[in-house]
Amino acid sequence: MRKNPNTMTETVISSATKEVVIGLNRPFVMIGERINPTGRKLLAEEMKNGDFSRVEADAIAQVEAGAHMLDVNAGIPLADEPALLSQAIKLVQSVTDVPLSIDSSIIEALEAGIAVYEGKPLINSVTGEDEVLERVLPLVAKAGAAVVAISNDETGISEDPDVRFDVARKIVHAAADFGIPASDVVVDPLVMPIGAMGTAGQQVFALVRRLRDELQVNTTCGASNVSFGLPNRHAITGTFLSMAIGAGMSSAIMNPMHPEVKTAVMAADVLAGHDRDCAAWIREYRAPAIDGEARGRRRTNRRGIA
Amino acid sequence: MRKNPNTMTETVISSATKEVVIGLNRPFVMIGERINPTGRKLLAEEMKNGDFSRVEADAIAQVEAGAHMLDVNAGIPLADEPALLSQAIKLVQSVTDVPLSIDSSIIEALEAGIAVYEGKPLINSVTGEDEVLERVLPLVAKAGAAVVAISNDETGISEDPDVRFDVARKIVHAAADFGIPASDVVVDPLVMPIGAMGTAGQQVFALVRRLRDELQVNTTCGASNVSFGLPNRHAITGTFLSMAIGAGMSSAIMNPMHPEVKTAVMAADVLAGHDRDCAAWIREYRAPAIDGEARGRRRTNRRGIA
Repeated sequence: MRKNPNTMTETVISSATKEVVIGLNRPFVMIGERINPTGRKLLAEEMKNGDFSRVEADAIAQVEAGAHMLDVNAGIPLADEPALLSQAIKLVQSVTDVPLSIDSSIIEALEAGIAVYEGKPLINSVTGEDEVLERVLPLVAKAGAAVVAISNDETGISEDPDVRFDVARKIVHAAADFGIPASDVVVDPLVMPIGAMGTAGQQVFALVRRLRDELQVNTTCGASNVSFGLPNRHAITGTFLSMAIGAGMSSAIMNPMHPEVKTAVMAADVLAGHDRDCAAWIREYRAPAIDGEARGRRRTNRRGIA
Repeated sequence: MRKNPNTMTETVISSATKEVVIGLNRPFVMIGERINPTGRKLLAEEMKNGDFSRVEADAIAQVEAGAHMLDVNAGIPLADEPALLSQAIKLVQSVTDVPLSIDSSIIEALEAGIAVYEGKPLINSVTGEDEVLERVLPLVAKAGAAVVAISNDETGISEDPDVRFDVARKIVHAAADFGIPASDVVVDPLVMPIGAMGTAGQQVFALVRRLRDELQVNTTCGASNVSFGLPNRHAITGTFLSMAIGAGMSSAIMNPMHPEVKTAVMAADVLAGHDRDCAAWIREYRAPAIDGEARGRRRTNRRGIA
């Protein structure tokens, strides 16, 4: 079998105590999407009023469901986003040890988030627009961080994956000029709703394959967008992720609390050869042991004896 | 986006009244696997005793679940396989109108099945072994049928997808010598259990991609084998099929009665751009209409008025 040339591309993200490695021959990295007030009116209202209880609960629940990292976004209109984002990051880092993606389109918010972050974060994101590159990349370089590169530029989002590939390459080259290695650039090919654009899946799969084979970078995406507006949408999102993993995608911002989505990712890891001996799969899905020991223990407990 | 050169490869299979087209830019063709006594002791016993009631029920149930074709196998040790297979085919063709795959490793059984079949069948299968090629291909040519080409030969099943590709090419060339066009050869890349061979998925995906891009043939497989021995196996089979569709597989012998498997195939069709406007997906999964008319109808029925 042809060996992939780029199996060594690894993006290391860390918290104070934990490292996560995004890599092409490694288990897919699930980045929890829930801490994001966009489209979550109640969460937005609470965060604006300084109530971060839901942020805390969402952080813990996603990690319990299997998230390897968490995306943290505090984009609320007419709110002090830098203050909210840094507060959310501090809180999330106090209740979980997974590394974070610091998510904002506002440079001051990214700065504030980076200032309080412990470890090496993933900065989400930079685009191919010159002005954005020149403002975000120095921040990333100074923080020694990794960055999500979104493959659009001043001309918008092309439907042609080859044009999006060129934008991604431009960002990787610009990053290199700031001393940021390609292994710290995680490209987001941009996922459109398949219900609105029937070629959205094919575009992403073609682009991810080129990004892996030619540019040799890791990739990520906002996965839930693909199923927007469709019935049984989590099945679409899960299947999209498994096909993206088949094409070489190595991480996604997604919701691991939907069983269809998480199961599809874990099955794709098995089938892509990233789950050695199916160990993680068997641990997750084997029937609960009802062997002698377990039954014995249960009986003991029923008698009230520790 | 690069246009695939082989989008026109179409394999037409028919019954007396219905055509199914296996093709690279078309919805995936689900071939029901259930009518097969291998590993089904009760079915084997019944068929041997001339009781085909379960064959009939399995045929109807699979078509109702969405099977576009049915595989029919009567391989029972120490039984008269040619007689059983032709009887099963006549029965199945009398209760459903979907085209069939005539499945046997015994040449006389294939002959008997072809003799009673109405339409253009899929003959399952020929291997790359010279003796098998020379016995099966004339039958296929004479019947004007299509054939499943299994990519193993006298040396066995290689773990190297490039070797299996060469076997597939050999079969396609041999078929051409008998006047069978490549579009009537559907290659089975051979799916091994992923629990026993961790590279089984990668092998198939790499091979299917080459078969599509270089040999420009349609592909099929016995999908359920991939998840043999694993817990939550239908999720593995479904995810395998979605990734195989992403690599270009165009049909499979599978069980459409497992919802996880069927849903994954339908979602993969959406994401591969084979389900225009997500029409089939929406028809299958949209919430039941509770509009005025429907409610009115239900009320009318409760009153017992037709």
